[in-house]
Amino acid sequence: MRFEYRVKKWRTYIPIVEVLGDYRRGYLQRDLVAGLIVGLITVPQAMAYAFLAGLPAQTGLYACLVPMLIYTIFGSSRHLVVGPVAVAALMVAATIGQATERFGYPPTEIALILSLQVGLILWLLRLSQMGGLVNLLSHPVIGGFINAAAILIIFSQIPGLTGMPSKSGNPLDQAAWYLTHLTAVHWLPIVMGIASLAVIWFCQKHLVRQLRRMGVRLGFGHPISRIGPIAVLALSALAVWAGDLHVRFGLETVGYVPQGLPTLTVPKFDLRLWGSLLGSSAILAVVVYVESYSIASGFATREQSRINSHQELIALGASNIGAAFFGAYPVAGSFSRSSVNYDAGARTPISSVVSSLVVVLVLLLLTPLFAYLPAPALAAIVVLSVVNLLDFRGIGRHWRIYREDAITSVITMLTVLIAGVETGLLTGVGLSIAFFVRSSSRPEVTVLGRMGTSEHFRSVRRYDVRTVPHAACVRVDENIYFANANQIENKLLKAVHRRPGTSHLLLVCSAVNRIDVSGLEMLFRLNRALDRLGVKLSLAEVKASVMEQLDATNLKTVLTGKVYFTTDQGMRELEADAPDRPQQEGLPLI
Amino acid sequence: MRFEYRVKKWRTYIPIVEVLGDYRRGYLQRDLVAGLIVGLITVPQAMAYAFLAGLPAQTGLYACLVPMLIYTIFGSSRHLVVGPVAVAALMVAATIGQATERFGYPPTEIALILSLQVGLILWLLRLSQMGGLVNLLSHPVIGGFINAAAILIIFSQIPGLTGMPSKSGNPLDQAAWYLTHLTAVHWLPIVMGIASLAVIWFCQKHLVRQLRRMGVRLGFGHPISRIGPIAVLALSALAVWAGDLHVRFGLETVGYVPQGLPTLTVPKFDLRLWGSLLGSSAILAVVVYVESYSIASGFATREQSRINSHQELIALGASNIGAAFFGAYPVAGSFSRSSVNYDAGARTPISSVVSSLVVVLVLLLLTPLFAYLPAPALAAIVVLSVVNLLDFRGIGRHWRIYREDAITSVITMLTVLIAGVETGLLTGVGLSIAFFVRSSSRPEVTVLGRMGTSEHFRSVRRYDVRTVPHAACVRVDENIYFANANQIENKLLKAVHRRPGTSHLLLVCSAVNRIDVSGLEMLFRLNRALDRLGVKLSLAEVKASVMEQLDATNLKTVLTGKVYFTTDQGMRELEADAPDRPQQEGLPLI
Repeated sequence: MRFEYRVKKWRTYIPIVEVLGDYRRGYLQRDLVAGLIVGLITVPQAMAYAFLAGLPAQTGLYACLVPMLIYTIFGSSRHLVVGPVAVAALMVAATIGQATERFGYPPTEIALILSLQVGLILWLLRLSQMGGLVNLLSHPVIGGFINAAAILIIFSQIPGLTGMPSKSGNPLDQAAWYLTHLTAVHWLPIVMGIASLAVIWFCQKHLVRQLRRMGVRLGFGHPISRIGPIAVLALSALAVWAGDLHVRFGLETVGYVPQGLPTLTVPKFDLRLWGSLLGSSAILAVVVYVESYSIASGFATREQSRINSHQELIALGASNIGAAFFGAYPVAGSFSRSSVNYDAGARTPISSVVSSLVVVLVLLLLTPLFAYLPAPALAAIVVLSVVNLLDFRGIGRHWRIYREDAITSVITMLTVLIAGVETGLLTGVGLSIAFFVRSSSRPEVTVLGRMGTSEHFRSVRRYDVRTVPHAACVRVDENIYFANANQIENKLLKAVHRRPGTSHLLLVCSAVNRIDVSGLEMLFRLNRALDRLGVKLSLAEVKASVMEQLDATNLKTVLTGKVYFTTDQGMRELEADAPDRPQQEGLPLI
Repeated sequence: MRFEYRVKKWRTYIPIVEVLGDYRRGYLQRDLVAGLIVGLITVPQAMAYAFLAGLPAQTGLYACLVPMLIYTIFGSSRHLVVGPVAVAALMVAATIGQATERFGYPPTEIALILSLQVGLILWLLRLSQMGGLVNLLSHPVIGGFINAAAILIIFSQIPGLTGMPSKSGNPLDQAAWYLTHLTAVHWLPIVMGIASLAVIWFCQKHLVRQLRRMGVRLGFGHPISRIGPIAVLALSALAVWAGDLHVRFGLETVGYVPQGLPTLTVPKFDLRLWGSLLGSSAILAVVVYVESYSIASGFATREQSRINSHQELIALGASNIGAAFFGAYPVAGSFSRSSVNYDAGARTPISSVVSSLVVVLVLLLLTPLFAYLPAPALAAIVVLSVVNLLDFRGIGRHWRIYREDAITSVITMLTVLIAGVETGLLTGVGLSIAFFVRSSSRPEVTVLGRMGTSEHFRSVRRYDVRTVPHAACVRVDENIYFANANQIENKLLKAVHRRPGTSHLLLVCSAVNRIDVSGLEMLFRLNRALDRLGVKLSLAEVKASVMEQLDATNLKTVLTGKVYFTTDQGMRELEADAPDRPQQEGLPLI
């Protein structure tokens, strides 16, 4: 028994064991096909994102080997494809740019340190049970961030697409600069870039339809629509080779890529450099985790399975540590490749193993051809893969549901664009917390009445309910805490002032989940203030946890009224306790 | 009619008009007595706090003239005495110390600018309707801050009490320094300081009892117990004069104070200085407002009257602007003097006018005597007035009610002591918001059952309730928003997984006051995920405001179950919808 328990416990940390144990024959063919397709898509993306990150092409390909395989072992998702992704590449590029300038290390070294730090931070989040912290990145913040990242990435590809020199700065400055320097556009890159964009776009949007028209039996969304990038690479490399374009016109190409597999790399330790990278790594780790987890959950929901958030932290951490030791750069779950993997029918992570083999073959056999791969084709691949990430309609939708979320999203986007990823994300998180605190500090206090003769009480504003003049029944629609205690007190006192003749106030606490010291002191104060006005304060529907808090004080002893179990019980008793005549001040009650 | 309306509106901004309109003859005597007593207490306090702030004695006295009178005109409290206070003086001292060093302006100039900025910030808070922001300073934060301020003030008086040179730094460093330099203690200041402390302490604690034993008819808490400071000043000045102590032993005294009333002073404008003071002014303004408002509310509650928080912002703003133009420094409501004012029977702010007249007389007639007032006596007055502010028992009380509040209070106190007032207050506010977000991001999800045959549903854990196997009834005890949407989803899915055979999930939303986009997306996801598990999702007791948010989406159309008005209605219908036999997967239901 004890042994079995241990086996079970051990297996939960290595999900691949269970996958292989349950592996059925029919899975293999599907995993093979999906793996091959994803592998073919991976190669151009990996190189393009490596360029985006400011790193040599091979680092992108290396990121599809060890990190991807580690995830297949430890990951709890059956469809997530981990490897180089555009958004992380953008963040790596920004960090590398600053760090090489200040510390003089080569970009590849810094990428290794970043990967290691990201991996360790993810593990630390798991160990300290703080994974929940990433929930602070709300959907609007992530949405705004992704929009901004997509815009930044598109701008970063303009030099590749046009042959113009690259220009740093925020997108507005860049746009102005590019527009005023249109003469710097070279004809060859721009022709090739536009052609590449057209081919990929055609494959994505029209290829399947065309093939169906031609009688080929294909479902819509067939993985063949993703063939564009690899076709573009093949065609453009052929053109460069045939026309000797890189020699005759100086067209930028990938150039020399070392043949063979990555060797062991050990990230350098330099305390000052590590310290200065830590902030970026923390943000990067959070983005890696949030993005990967939300993609994985999406597929899990479709498959009626579930993602283990703790296991994901372990798996993504291990993948990134693997990236650090095998010459890659920070990796995350890729939305586009995971979608292709899922659509192509992958059943298990074995498909990712197949994709890795494709990359291995490319590294062993095809690297000499990379000397002919032109930069505009890679830039086109990046641009079209991030255009799909842009989502501005979501902002309008958010506006109708919860205005603050739309504002948060737009401000996060603008801050990321103008002040950078870290400032932008922190601003977004700060803003969403501020909005949350603000709205909970403007509490609703609802006067209730009885629905007919039922036991139910509802708002007097929205329903036709019965009330009695001497007993007010009021519900507080918020946790009572420091940011709203004063307002709740004021609103309750106003409610009583507006109803002369009130002798009982019943506070319905069904929506109060917590109360803090400021809130409790307010209740004491309210009790005293109402007592002076000749009004007795009672409570109803106090939750057990709140009751424990009240019991830690002597509120129940000093309370002028009682604590009732239900609103109905309370109001029944208070309704019966009507004063014999209207209260008159100053006159003796003979 | 229109005219009357205007008059009414105009009068609400100048509460003194109403006070004078309702003034009764009997009030005058009480206001006169209270005003005289407060005036006598004010004089030594005003000078002592001016020294604490690093300013000449007369600025403290000037702060009891124009600022105090302005508050009597605009303030909505009948008992609050506005003027120099210890905590504000401490903050002013810290700011002045930094600013004189950097900008070379004399302390008095900087005090004027601080006063003007504090006044303008208070007015700005009123204009922008942002007065509610100060609620972010929760009781535990204020408590921790006051404790720390009291400790800092006591340490700042050690040089005055002992004749040792003053030492800056945090209290630990100071304590270490003073203890290792005990030889620097002078006999005369320390004898005089201890004697002063003893006299004030005796008056505070034992004078009334002794007088009663001697047959004098006095109530406990009679204002005569506050006579200590003025007695100490008189006696010690007499001793200095008689023994020529300031000449023979170099005893520090107040020295020269210009005779007569303050003249118009115009704060200097220097953009860099103003900019660098702005942060301190903002914090100071918040402290001034929070302290004054809470003192005023305390008395208002006892008197069954109410404080208008908007009017307080106007009045305190005007007082501080008055301070800026009449040679004073930032003022606030004084707890000790307001208490004496109230206990001495003051009925209206006219008592403060009387107190001001006392100060005027002192300024016109008694300033030559100040050359004999010794520093140890003033230090003793400061120490005993802030010792009463220390409250460590509150921390233990908070611990039992709401642990996070106790932690916030202690950390605020320590941060103020070590890193200064501004860092400390910001840390405290940040911490209380963080704790609030953290606790709301760990939502309770309570499984409910029917109480007997009633219409009421309660937790299955705490009560003996009836449940049905196929319909789960679950209450979410928190607003559904970005920080907890994932956890709520997980907990609900787990709850369903734990109950095989569930075909209905009724979500009771009585404690959900708000929902944001992340929360709504979670509901869509949950609906889909449950659908795949063969579980229908229904909602009950959705508040009207939340319903409006749901209506902005198509949730109601895609929801697999229904939206019920009450839990009882919902469960009645779902209980009846029991499956004929236990669901079996894979077998046809013939």
